Amino acid sequence: MTRPTPLSGFPEFLPSQRAAELVVIDTLRETFELHGFASLETRHVEPLDQLLRKGETSNEVYVLRRLQEDPDSRDGTDPSSGPGLGLHFDLTVPLARYVLEHQGKLDFPFRRYQIQRCWRGERPQEGRYREFTQADIDIIGRDTLGFDADIEVTEVMAEALSRLPVPPLTLHVNHRKLIQGFYLGLGLDDGAVVDVIRAVDKLDKAGVDGVRRLLLDLGVTEAQADQCLALARIKGTDAGFADEVRALGVQHPQLDEGLDALVTAVEATAHTRSDQFSVVADLQIARGLDYYTGLVFEGRMENLLGTMSICAGGRYDALASDGRSTYPGVGISLGITRLVAPLIGRGLLDADRSVPSAVLVALPDEESRESVRAIARALRARGIPAETAPSAAKYGRQIRHADRRGIPYVWFPGSGGERDSVRDIRSGDQQPADATTWAPPDDDLRPRIVNPSLNPSQGEHA
Amino acid sequence: MTRPTPLSGFPEFLPSQRAAELVVIDTLRETFELHGFASLETRHVEPLDQLLRKGETSNEVYVLRRLQEDPDSRDGTDPSSGPGLGLHFDLTVPLARYVLEHQGKLDFPFRRYQIQRCWRGERPQEGRYREFTQADIDIIGRDTLGFDADIEVTEVMAEALSRLPVPPLTLHVNHRKLIQGFYLGLGLDDGAVVDVIRAVDKLDKAGVDGVRRLLLDLGVTEAQADQCLALARIKGTDAGFADEVRALGVQHPQLDEGLDALVTAVEATAHTRSDQFSVVADLQIARGLDYYTGLVFEGRMENLLGTMSICAGGRYDALASDGRSTYPGVGISLGITRLVAPLIGRGLLDADRSVPSAVLVALPDEESRESVRAIARALRARGIPAETAPSAAKYGRQIRHADRRGIPYVWFPGSGGERDSVRDIRSGDQQPADATTWAPPDDDLRPRIVNPSLNPSQGEHA
Repeated sequence: MTRPTPLSGFPEFLPSQRAAELVVIDTLRETFELHGFASLETRHVEPLDQLLRKGETSNEVYVLRRLQEDPDSRDGTDPSSGPGLGLHFDLTVPLARYVLEHQGKLDFPFRRYQIQRCWRGERPQEGRYREFTQADIDIIGRDTLGFDADIEVTEVMAEALSRLPVPPLTLHVNHRKLIQGFYLGLGLDDGAVVDVIRAVDKLDKAGVDGVRRLLLDLGVTEAQADQCLALARIKGTDAGFADEVRALGVQHPQLDEGLDALVTAVEATAHTRSDQFSVVADLQIARGLDYYTGLVFEGRMENLLGTMSICAGGRYDALASDGRSTYPGVGISLGITRLVAPLIGRGLLDADRSVPSAVLVALPDEESRESVRAIARALRARGIPAETAPSAAKYGRQIRHADRRGIPYVWFPGSGGERDSVRDIRSGDQQPADATTWAPPDDDLRPRIVNPSLNPSQGEHA
Repeated sequence: MTRPTPLSGFPEFLPSQRAAELVVIDTLRETFELHGFASLETRHVEPLDQLLRKGETSNEVYVLRRLQEDPDSRDGTDPSSGPGLGLHFDLTVPLARYVLEHQGKLDFPFRRYQIQRCWRGERPQEGRYREFTQADIDIIGRDTLGFDADIEVTEVMAEALSRLPVPPLTLHVNHRKLIQGFYLGLGLDDGAVVDVIRAVDKLDKAGVDGVRRLLLDLGVTEAQADQCLALARIKGTDAGFADEVRALGVQHPQLDEGLDALVTAVEATAHTRSDQFSVVADLQIARGLDYYTGLVFEGRMENLLGTMSICAGGRYDALASDGRSTYPGVGISLGITRLVAPLIGRGLLDADRSVPSAVLVALPDEESRESVRAIARALRARGIPAETAPSAAKYGRQIRHADRRGIPYVWFPGSGGERDSVRDIRSGDQQPADATTWAPPDDDLRPRIVNPSLNPSQGEHA
């Protein structure tokens, strides 16, 4: 068999890189569970008609066909397999289907997280993959859902992002009603609001003058356009941004409602702010504002990926509807692969070991295998990951075995009544030890993230 | 949208059932990591030529096609997407490909675990699914791999299985060299060994007389056939089985080698034996003996699924080969869905909550939202999963909200200088409490498995 080559768009990691990705995934899961979000895993496959309900995604879907299926059934249908199936391209379509299918057995508001692979047949590039892992949180109500749910998902995702061992992240937040109320308060009519939102969304690409022209073309006056652009420039990491909005002098009940919600979102996440993370009220964020109805979110790793979003979401009035009930929701979707793969690709995210083992138990000779297994067992019984040396090579070679994998400790069984000893192979320090009582420092128990760009002082030791 | 219906062969669970499945998955992962096995996740897609290298699986593969792809490229190939792709049907084919692709960056012996979904287009039935989760452990060497690796994977999987909260499991173990050496020692020639193994494998279906006829048809003598059948009847959960083998009076160096290994495997896993689990030397296990070269494994949940295997594996001389090197390995594959779905389907596996929350913080009135959020935050800061009530309904309704989800504690914020209090809603016991110091008993921190059939005394409380 010849050496296989990577498939473009299907990223894979080496063991220490995977260990770093696992730290990211475990941090997300732990945060979601601390907030009481239930784990959900849906099947990875949905009927094609479900996946294609929104026409614009049709070119991204991978369709499944059983190899032995009648090849003329090109839509993926055959008599034995039922309707055509495709791989899901996000976790929202499966959630909507799951909620409808199981609504009689779910308690609402239904709060769930979901961490799974998704597939899109897009042309691959950095930040865009054909196979990728997403982490979604959503709160789904039946018929009604209080607006405090918007604040709640903001807080959960802010806490999760603030704890990730990655370069600085920001979660930009805006509110549909703030923007809509502002435009209505300016005297624009209902029908113009969505067009104006779409025009302002082009600010990064078209610039201020370009957007002004677009607005004027829509029939907006010069004065109104100035106000729209002034609003879009407002950003803030505390409640102060609200004063800037009010200073523009526009009045509308929806503006007040949206502004209150956005202030609450910023204040409820104040505890997550650090050098590495902040929640920003950003009144330029338009993404999905024409679709979402309350808060709208966009997370970025700006130092590295500019304005590319690594997470996105918002409030929607109807995730699903079955005729009897409507299911409003609010949620955020985090692209784990989109966050992690560029960091790993640039050497900015890795773990200090390629294995979970904190200890390698050395093998003095082949006859000692059973006693060496017993030592490892005693360590594991107290939660210390341990492996045994594969062969009774010279101790120098066994130490190199540990060193190559980043295992910090090598355990030497005592012989002839001598006590066992354990060596920290980073410092060379060796001490007598008993496998039923010794433990490494907590920091050495599990693989740790090494990230020279984040922790320059640690990087020097690497 | 009409109510969706389940897809046959694609099982999905309700939140409390998923919580129970997660306990199973977390137990496996924790055991694998305690033994120093590295987590690996491969892409879920492989080139079709890789998936079809063994012809007999061709009818099980799901082929992928991008919806907008040229429909005449029926093999899943189009100019933009490269070679045809299919979903992997196990985790061994991707491991072999991964090892070859990344061999220059891996340390051997390479010990990894992998917990991922797989797909097979088989006709669905209990224990056979079109989408399912597998948990695999393997140790892969480069050119050589000591036979202690066989013992090691036996020990790891035995520990993992022994810790699972499921009905009794047994891990049946046999050894290719024991069987082969025995047959050679009987005077059968090398070429007959595989045929005899296949004949003896039919014992459950064809019975003793049927197998005897098959053996005689192969040219085996009556006396040899008696010996083959006597060997196949030997089973044991301790080293005593070896005496029964030796009592048959057959001599061969390979028999000794295999017998030693099998005795070691049974002895090295003695610490895992309980009412719920045992490792059984079972000399009738032929599954894969014609393919594997050392130990061979088959796990069963016999009370419930009879001889259907829930895990299987063994030693193989060449997982992969790239012309320069050969990669021998030993591994076991556990069918998580095959284990869990029948239990969940029969109501034999579930968790005591549908959410991770240990505490619901009640909301006295809408004005208290910020202080209620602060209480929940203080609990979470000490690792206690907590959620806040979605609305300021009457306390009776808020308590029912917790009860329906299985949340054991409801927290009542004090008003007007009064202290907070926390109620165990199972017992009704209510105590004053401080969110910065109170903690529930450890057992209440996370969802627990409820399994009336396993714990009849617990079942009475349910």
